[in-house]
Amino acid sequence: MKTTRDATDPTPLRRSICPVANTLDRIGDKWSLLLVRDMLAGKLTYGQFLESPEGIPTNILADRLKRLEQFGIITRSVYQERPVRYAYALTTQGKQLRVVLRAIADWGLENIGGTKKAIVPGSFTR
Amino acid sequence: MKTTRDATDPTPLRRSICPVANTLDRIGDKWSLLLVRDMLAGKLTYGQFLESPEGIPTNILADRLKRLEQFGIITRSVYQERPVRYAYALTTQGKQLRVVLRAIADWGLENIGGTKKAIVPGSFTR
Repeated sequence: MKTTRDATDPTPLRRSICPVANTLDRIGDKWSLLLVRDMLAGKLTYGQFLESPEGIPTNILADRLKRLEQFGIITRSVYQERPVRYAYALTTQGKQLRVVLRAIADWGLENIGGTKKAIVPGSFTR
Repeated sequence: MKTTRDATDPTPLRRSICPVANTLDRIGDKWSLLLVRDMLAGKLTYGQFLESPEGIPTNILADRLKRLEQFGIITRSVYQERPVRYAYALTTQGKQLRVVLRAIADWGLENIGGTKKAIVPGSFTR
């Protein structure tokens, strides 16, 4: 018997009990971890994320911020009224992705020519 | 002036010099790292990858194996003639993704309920 699934439930359908598969269902794409990188580097706002050199499209930015919030990786708070503007911050579990980002950065630096350590001041990359 | 790009060149267009962005352009999806996981766990063949619990679709499997080979992360060799069958193995740089997988697995085990350490004997997950 199938269980009922709330249409607003952001939890991905579980592919397996593997922690790698479940993590990739949340942040396994080309953009989510770049936003985590930016937040670890001190970026807070929609406008700041748009300034990153990769040029994230606005529709993808909006989607990924919403997903990351639903998964409990970031939180959103109002920092300006009229017009309302939001600031984004990593939760404790979001900050724990620093280890993942460091491993990915180290692999890239070792194996992909032309990559460099830091692209913004205070970036996590070493 | 734009430089000419060989149609067979698998190198992604560079979004930035960030090592995270460049790595995600190669393995930033829901399946590539699961294949690396399977190879680290000793799986070698197309049929073995299909047996993994996540149920990778055959067209995605074929695409990801081809991409991983083009990026120098895996190699392919013939292990049977008539019909020809291939065995896949991680290169040195592919094996270095073990650190990335371990960080992702640790994050999942810590933050996603219901995930478990090992799904196949000899899996990298701790």
